[in-house]
Amino acid sequence: MTSTKHTPEQEQPSTSEAIRAAAFQLFGEHGFGGTSVRAIAKVAGIDPALVIRHFGSKEALFLETTPVADYFEGQFDGPLDTLGERIAVFVLGKADARMLSVYTALMRASDSPRIRERLREMTGTLATNLAARLDGEDAYTRALLVSAQVSGLLSVLSDESIPQSADRDELAKLYGRAMQTLIDQY
Amino acid sequence: MTSTKHTPEQEQPSTSEAIRAAAFQLFGEHGFGGTSVRAIAKVAGIDPALVIRHFGSKEALFLETTPVADYFEGQFDGPLDTLGERIAVFVLGKADARMLSVYTALMRASDSPRIRERLREMTGTLATNLAARLDGEDAYTRALLVSAQVSGLLSVLSDESIPQSADRDELAKLYGRAMQTLIDQY
Repeated sequence: MTSTKHTPEQEQPSTSEAIRAAAFQLFGEHGFGGTSVRAIAKVAGIDPALVIRHFGSKEALFLETTPVADYFEGQFDGPLDTLGERIAVFVLGKADARMLSVYTALMRASDSPRIRERLREMTGTLATNLAARLDGEDAYTRALLVSAQVSGLLSVLSDESIPQSADRDELAKLYGRAMQTLIDQY
Repeated sequence: MTSTKHTPEQEQPSTSEAIRAAAFQLFGEHGFGGTSVRAIAKVAGIDPALVIRHFGSKEALFLETTPVADYFEGQFDGPLDTLGERIAVFVLGKADARMLSVYTALMRASDSPRIRERLREMTGTLATNLAARLDGEDAYTRALLVSAQVSGLLSVLSDESIPQSADRDELAKLYGRAMQTLIDQY
């Protein structure tokens, strides 16, 4: 989404893209508070005023670079009786990549209501998509609790409570089993 | 109450207490970012300079009012085979009270490394205390994953993803069962 007033049409995509890429990199490395508009502009090779012209504010740019709606796209396919472990494998496998970086940045900046809303959207989207696959009247509640488990796993991954040496397969098996109890109907 | 530079020793406890109480209230209501030293001083009925004199910085005062070490004291006693649900009842039952308020304030301010360290201490203390009760070589790993589940539950409680109308007993039963799979040895 671009929303500039005076930049010629043909310049928009590359400038916007350069800002977006710089922002994504810096927010991921230093968080929201630790990243200035000036630093983003420097990495993008442009004037700081252009960042604001293109995105309105640092927060708006942050929200642009932390989409969460599509993270779990396709993750709830396949047999239900092994879904818990597949979700755990997915979360643990993405640990060094985009999802963890986005979740971490959002969580640490969640003093802002708009950023908090984005985190809540992440939880809600996960719960809604998973609930669509579950049976039972309390499907959404169970799915919401699975999303709580996913948030918790991302939290300990992002605060590095889980040692690097930990066996990821074993973690996925254990945590997957715990999520499976909410996926299964009793 | 006088607010001179040379406050006699015997006056310090009440001033400290007034600052601490005001800080606890305001951080709980407005978070770390939303609470100024000036606002704390106003509620405490003292000069802002005294807040800094007594606690050094807003962050140091925040950390003073968000102790986490004793939250789970005594929560791991009793029979192991029903421990999962008891922990869930404890977390859900404290939802409107001090623990959730502290966790929420810490999480939203976790762009700061010192505050992040406090969150990590919370996770680690929970895991260590629980692990002491569990059997098996992977007791600490399982306990750490239970602490991840607790963090996740606190997250969805604090972002209000769980509707007020949700049946807390039912939630405790479901989530407790999920935590129990990590408490039990397979």
